[in-house]
Amino acid sequence: MIVGRSPRIRQSFQKAWSALIALFFWDLAVTIFYYISPFKAPALPLTIFGTALALVLGFRVNSAYSRWWEGRILWGAMVNVSRSFSRAVLAYLPDTPDARAMGVTLVKRHIAYVHALRCQLRREDPAPDMQRVLGEDGALPELERRNPANGVLDGSDRRLMEAVHHGWIDTIQQTRIEGMLVDMSNAQGGMERIKNTPLPAQYRAFPKYFTRLFCILLPIGLVETLGMATPVGSAVAGFMFLAVLQIGDDLVDPFGNDVHDLPLTSITTTIEGDLNQAIGLPAPPPLQPVDGVLW
Amino acid sequence: MIVGRSPRIRQSFQKAWSALIALFFWDLAVTIFYYISPFKAPALPLTIFGTALALVLGFRVNSAYSRWWEGRILWGAMVNVSRSFSRAVLAYLPDTPDARAMGVTLVKRHIAYVHALRCQLRREDPAPDMQRVLGEDGALPELERRNPANGVLDGSDRRLMEAVHHGWIDTIQQTRIEGMLVDMSNAQGGMERIKNTPLPAQYRAFPKYFTRLFCILLPIGLVETLGMATPVGSAVAGFMFLAVLQIGDDLVDPFGNDVHDLPLTSITTTIEGDLNQAIGLPAPPPLQPVDGVLW
Amino acid sequence: MIVGRSPRIRQSFQKAWSALIALFFWDLAVTIFYYISPFKAPALPLTIFGTALALVLGFRVNSAYSRWWEGRILWGAMVNVSRSFSRAVLAYLPDTPDARAMGVTLVKRHIAYVHALRCQLRREDPAPDMQRVLGEDGALPELERRNPANGVLDGSDRRLMEAVHHGWIDTIQQTRIEGMLVDMSNAQGGMERIKNTPLPAQYRAFPKYFTRLFCILLPIGLVETLGMATPVGSAVAGFMFLAVLQIGDDLVDPFGNDVHDLPLTSITTTIEGDLNQAIGLPAPPPLQPVDGVLW
Amino acid sequence: MIVGRSPRIRQSFQKAWSALIALFFWDLAVTIFYYISPFKAPALPLTIFGTALALVLGFRVNSAYSRWWEGRILWGAMVNVSRSFSRAVLAYLPDTPDARAMGVTLVKRHIAYVHALRCQLRREDPAPDMQRVLGEDGALPELERRNPANGVLDGSDRRLMEAVHHGWIDTIQQTRIEGMLVDMSNAQGGMERIKNTPLPAQYRAFPKYFTRLFCILLPIGLVETLGMATPVGSAVAGFMFLAVLQIGDDLVDPFGNDVHDLPLTSITTTIEGDLNQAIGLPAPPPLQPVDGVLW
Amino acid sequence: MIVGRSPRIRQSFQKAWSALIALFFWDLAVTIFYYISPFKAPALPLTIFGTALALVLGFRVNSAYSRWWEGRILWGAMVNVSRSFSRAVLAYLPDTPDARAMGVTLVKRHIAYVHALRCQLRREDPAPDMQRVLGEDGALPELERRNPANGVLDGSDRRLMEAVHHGWIDTIQQTRIEGMLVDMSNAQGGMERIKNTPLPAQYRAFPKYFTRLFCILLPIGLVETLGMATPVGSAVAGFMFLAVLQIGDDLVDPFGNDVHDLPLTSITTTIEGDLNQAIGLPAPPPLQPVDGVLW
Repeated sequence: MIVGRSPRIRQSFQKAWSALIALFFWDLAVTIFYYISPFKAPALPLTIFGTALALVLGFRVNSAYSRWWEGRILWGAMVNVSRSFSRAVLAYLPDTPDARAMGVTLVKRHIAYVHALRCQLRREDPAPDMQRVLGEDGALPELERRNPANGVLDGSDRRLMEAVHHGWIDTIQQTRIEGMLVDMSNAQGGMERIKNTPLPAQYRAFPKYFTRLFCILLPIGLVETLGMATPVGSAVAGFMFLAVLQIGDDLVDPFGNDVHDLPLTSITTTIEGDLNQAIGLPAPPPLQPVDGVLW
Repeated sequence: MIVGRSPRIRQSFQKAWSALIALFFWDLAVTIFYYISPFKAPALPLTIFGTALALVLGFRVNSAYSRWWEGRILWGAMVNVSRSFSRAVLAYLPDTPDARAMGVTLVKRHIAYVHALRCQLRREDPAPDMQRVLGEDGALPELERRNPANGVLDGSDRRLMEAVHHGWIDTIQQTRIEGMLVDMSNAQGGMERIKNTPLPAQYRAFPKYFTRLFCILLPIGLVETLGMATPVGSAVAGFMFLAVLQIGDDLVDPFGNDVHDLPLTSITTTIEGDLNQAIGLPAPPPLQPVDGVLW
Repeated sequence: MIVGRSPRIRQSFQKAWSALIALFFWDLAVTIFYYISPFKAPALPLTIFGTALALVLGFRVNSAYSRWWEGRILWGAMVNVSRSFSRAVLAYLPDTPDARAMGVTLVKRHIAYVHALRCQLRREDPAPDMQRVLGEDGALPELERRNPANGVLDGSDRRLMEAVHHGWIDTIQQTRIEGMLVDMSNAQGGMERIKNTPLPAQYRAFPKYFTRLFCILLPIGLVETLGMATPVGSAVAGFMFLAVLQIGDDLVDPFGNDVHDLPLTSITTTIEGDLNQAIGLPAPPPLQPVDGVLW
Repeated sequence: MIVGRSPRIRQSFQKAWSALIALFFWDLAVTIFYYISPFKAPALPLTIFGTALALVLGFRVNSAYSRWWEGRILWGAMVNVSRSFSRAVLAYLPDTPDARAMGVTLVKRHIAYVHALRCQLRREDPAPDMQRVLGEDGALPELERRNPANGVLDGSDRRLMEAVHHGWIDTIQQTRIEGMLVDMSNAQGGMERIKNTPLPAQYRAFPKYFTRLFCILLPIGLVETLGMATPVGSAVAGFMFLAVLQIGDDLVDPFGNDVHDLPLTSITTTIEGDLNQAIGLPAPPPLQPVDGVLW
Repeated sequence: MIVGRSPRIRQSFQKAWSALIALFFWDLAVTIFYYISPFKAPALPLTIFGTALALVLGFRVNSAYSRWWEGRILWGAMVNVSRSFSRAVLAYLPDTPDARAMGVTLVKRHIAYVHALRCQLRREDPAPDMQRVLGEDGALPELERRNPANGVLDGSDRRLMEAVHHGWIDTIQQTRIEGMLVDMSNAQGGMERIKNTPLPAQYRAFPKYFTRLFCILLPIGLVETLGMATPVGSAVAGFMFLAVLQIGDDLVDPFGNDVHDLPLTSITTTIEGDLNQAIGLPAPPPLQPVDGVLW
C-alpha cells in the first residue's frame, strides 16, 4: 500500500506509462494518415460510446474499490478480535502458573494464526512464521491440515475445553471466548471469499475491451474537428479512461503482493506487537514503509 | 464461475456473439437502404434515448451484481459457520466413545446439509449426496420433508438436546451451538430468497425492450452523419449497451447451472474437505476448473 | 409478484399503455400544429432538462427498489426465524405430553402470527386466519389489541415463562427463544416502517410533475430537427422516462395487493407448510401463480 | 411528515414557489435586455456546468435522504425494542403484587423515556410529558441530568438490579433485559448523532451557491438560441435544479418541527398506546394527520 | 467541524480561494493570447473529458464522505457504549463501599480511555488527559504500552475479573460487561483503520491531476466559442470541479485537526460529562463552537 499524503507521481503512473505512450503514437499515426490520405474521417458517435463506457467502468471501479475496502475492514476486524481475544483470555484464566501458561500459549497460537492466514492469502508457505512464533515443533499438526489457519483455531478451542475441565473457567466464559474464534472464522472466511472469487468474467473482459476499442476509435472520431491537436487531445481523453480502468485492476485483488495491495505484513506485525506486550514480551518494531510502500 | 485472470475471449462473448452479428446486419441494411432510397434519415434524439437507457441499464446491472455477490456472501457465511459448528461440536462434546460418535454424526449431518442445500437451490435431487455422506438409510426421514435441508437442521437440534440429557454439554453450550444452526437457517433463507424472488417484472422487461429498440433506432439516427461508417459505428455502440444488458442477465440468478453462476459444487466440496479433516477422515480433492470454469 | 423468466408484455405495459397512447397523440398534435402554423419551434434545452430529470428519477427508482427489496428481506428474515423458532421450541421442550402440547401450541401461535401480520400489512381483517389456525376461540384476546400480531408475541412469551415455572426449560433456553421473539418484532417493525412511511412528499410529487412536463415539452423542442418523425421519436423518448417513473410507483409500497407487490400470501403459506411438517401435521400445498402472478 | 398518496401541490411547492417567481423575473429581465441591447450573449458551456452541478446536487440529495431514512429506521428500532422490552419485563417478573408493580413502573418509565427523547431531539422541555406519564414528582431526579432520557435508562437498570436482589429474576434474565437498554442507547445515540452533526459545511454551501449561480447564468447562455422562449425554458430548467436543492434542505435534519420532518409525536404516541395496552391501561387514540401532515 | 445552518462564506471558500484566483488568471492569459496570436484554438473534446472527470471525482468524493461519516458513526458508537458501560457497571456492582469504589474507578478509567483514544488519533500525547482524569500516577502502566488506550481496556478487564473473585458479580454479568469492552475495541479499531489507511494512491493522485489538467485545457477549448466571456465562463466551470475535488480532500481524513474534521474534543467532553453525572461528579461544561467551528 502506497502511503503518504502526496505519493510520488512515478508510482501512480508506473503501470499507466506504457499505455500512455502507445496511445500517443496511435493517435499520432491516425492524425498523420488523416492529413496524407484522401479519406474523410467519420463523425463517430463518441458521446454514446462514452456513456456506455462510463457505465461499464463505473461499475467496475466501484466493485473493485468495495472489494479492496472490504478486505481492509476484514483485517481491521481481525485486529480488533485479536485484542479482545488476548484481553479476555488473560483476564478469565486464573493467576496460577498452569493457567497462566495456557493463556500465554493461546495468545501465541493466535499470533501464529494471523501469520498463517496472511501467508495462505498470499499463497506463501505458513510454516516458517508459525514455527518461529510457536517454537520449532509446535506448529506441526496444524500444518498437515489443508487450511492450517483453521486448524489452529480448532486446536485452540480444544485447549479452551481443557481449561473448563481444569475448572479454570466456566462454560459461560468458554462460550464467550469461543464466540471470538467464530469472529475470527468469519473474518478469515470473508478474506478467502474475496481471494477466491474473481469479479464476474464479463466485468473483467468487457471494460478492458471497450476501453481499448474506445481509445482506438477516439482519434478517428476526433481528427476531423481537432486537426493537428488530435494526438494531444485524444491521448488525454483516452488516458483518463485507461486510468480508471487501471484503478479497477489494481484494487480488485487486495491480498496480493503488489504495491497497491493491503499491507498484510504490517498489520500482522502490529497484531504481534500488541499481543506480545499483553503477555509481557518485547514487541517487534512496527513495519516502516520502504520507498513509500507499506507491505 | 469463470476463473483465471484473463478469461478467454470466447467465453465472454459466447452469448453476445449472435446478437452482435444480427446487429451488424441490421445496421448494414439500414445503411444500404439509406443510400438507395430517396428518404432523408431523421436526426433522432439519440442522446436523450441514451440517458434514459443508461438509467435503466444502470439499475438493472447494479441489482443483478448485488444479487450475485450477496449469493456469494451467503455461501461464504455457510463456509464460516460450517467450520465454527464442527469446531464447537468437537470441542464441547467430552472424549467418551458415545459422545465422540455423536460429534462425528453431527458433523456428517452438516456435510449432508450443505449438499442438500446446493441440490435444492439447483432444483436437483438431494437424495444421492445425502445418502452417500450419511450412509444408505440415514437420510430418509429428512427427505420426506418438503425442505430436506431444513429437516436436517431440525434433527440435529434434537440430537443436541439428547447430548444435554446425557449430561455431555450444558444448556449454555447447547444454546451456543443452536445459535449456529440459526446462522445456517439465516444463510439458507437468504439463498432461497434470491432464488425465489426474480427481479421486478419491469426491471426484466423494460431494459430488454429499450435496449433492443435503441439498437434498432441507432443506425437510423446515425446514418445521416456517419454515412458509410454506419454499420461499424452503430454496431460498436449498440453492442456496448447489449453487453451491459447481457451482464445483468448472466448475474441475476446466481444459483443456476450456467458458466457465470456461483461454483456451489466447489464450495460444498471444500466444506466437506474441511469438515472431514476435522473428524479425521480423508478430504476429497478440491474441485478443479474444467475448461476454465469452476462449477 | 410477477414470476417466470419472460413475463408477458401485456403485464409489463399494462399501466404504461394509456400513458403511451396519450403521449403519442400529444406528439402528433404538436407536429401537425408545427406544420400548419407559422411559428418556429424554440430549441428547448432538452439535454439540461434531461440531466435534471435523470437525477430526480434516479433517486426515486433507487429508493423505491430499496424499499421493495428490504420488504422482501424482512419477510425472508421472518421465514428464517419461523424455522429457527419451531426448531428450538420443539428441541428444548421435554418429551412429556404436557410439554409437547405447549410446543405445538407455540408453533401454531406462530403460524397465526405470520398470518395476522400479513393481514395487518394489507389492511385486512386478521381474525379469520387466526381463528382457522388456533381454533375458533383461541385468537380472541389478542384480537382486542390494536396490534393483534404483537399481542400474539406477548402471549407466547408468557407461555414460555410458564414452561420455566414447570421446570421444562431453564432461563438460558428461555432467553434464547425470547430472543427469537425479538427478531420477529424487529422484522415486523421494519415492515410497518415501510408500510407507514411514504417516500418524502417531494420524491412523490416532483418526479411525476417533471416527467410529465418533460413529455409535454419534448415534441416542441424536437419538432424543428425531427420534422415528420417527431411523433415516433418523441413518444419513444418520453415513454422511456415514463416507464422509469412507473417502476418507482409500482415498487414503492411493496405490501399492497398489486400484481407488482410481494407475494405475502405465498410466503405465509410456505411458513405454515414448514411449521406444520415440523409438528407432524399435513402441509398446505404451496401457492401457485395465477396468470403468472404470485400473490 | 406529509402523508397520503397524492399530496396537494401546494405543499410540495410551498417553499419553492417564491424561488420560481424570482427565477422567472430574472429570466425575463435577461431576455428583455438581450433584445434591447446591442450585445451578443456568450455561448456559455452550460453542459459542463450542468455535469458539475449534477455531481454536487446528487451527493447532497443522496446524503440528505440517507439521513432522513436512517432517522426513521432508528425510531423504528425504538418501536421494536419498546415492544420487546415490555414483553420481556412483563413475562419475566413473577405474578406477585410487588413484582407486578415494578413491571408496570418499568414500562411506564419507558413510555416517559421515548417522550423525553422526542422532546430532547426537538429542543423542547421533556418535563411535562415525563411528569404526565410518571406522575407529578416521579420524573424529578432524571430531569436534573443533562440528558434526562439517558438518566431514565440508568434508573431503570438500577430497578432491574433490585429485581435480582428480590430474587424475582436471575442474572441471565437481567442481562437479557439490560441488553435491550443497550439497544435503546444505541438508537438514541444514533438519533443524537444525526441531530448534532450537520452535513459538512461544503456540502451545505457549494450546492446552494452553484445552483443559484447556474440559475443566474442559465438565461444568459440560452437566450441566443431560445430567443423569446427563454423565460419559460430557462425557468423550467432552473426550477428543476432548485427543486432538487430544496429536497436536500427539507430532508437533511429529520428531527425538527417542519412539515417534511419525521412524525415523532405520532410514533411516540403509538409506542405509548402499544405499551399501555400491554399493562392493561387504555391506549391514547393514534395521532391523525392535520391538513395532510402527520407531526 | 463547522456548525450552524448557514456557515460563513469565508470558511467554505477559504482553501478554494487561491485556486479560484490562479484559475482566473490562467483563463485570462489564454483569452489574451487567443486574441493577439494568429493560432486558432482547437475544439477540444471537453464533454468526453468531463465525463471521465465526473466519473473519477464522483468516486473520490463518495469515498471521502463515507470515511468521514463512518468516522462519525464510530464515535457515536463510542458515546453509546460509554453510557451503556457506566450504566451496567454501576447497576451490577453491589452497594458496598469497596464495590462502589471499583465502579467509580472503572467509569473514570473509561473517561481516560476515550481521551487517550482521541489523542492517539490526533497524534497527540495522551498522558496529560489520562493523568488529569485518573490522578497523577494512575495512568502510568498503560502509558508504557504502544497503544495506551488498548492498555486501559486490558486493565479494566482484569479489574472486572477481580470483581468476580470478590463475588460482587457473577460470570454472566462479567461477560456481559466484557462484551462492551469488545464493542469499544471494535469502534477503536475502526477509527484506527480509517486513520491508518489512506485512500488508494490512484484515488489521491488521478483526480487531482485530471482536475488540474481539465482546468488548464478548459479555456483553450472554450475560447473559440466564448470569446471575451472565456475568463468568467471557464473560471466558473473550472472552479466547480475544483470545489468537488476540495470536498474530497477535506473529508478524507476525519480525525485530524482541521476545521472540517470531526469534533473529537467536543465528543469526548460530552462523554466525560455524561459519565461524571452518572457517578455523581460535576460535569464539565459542553464545548462551545469557536468562530463557528467545533473542535
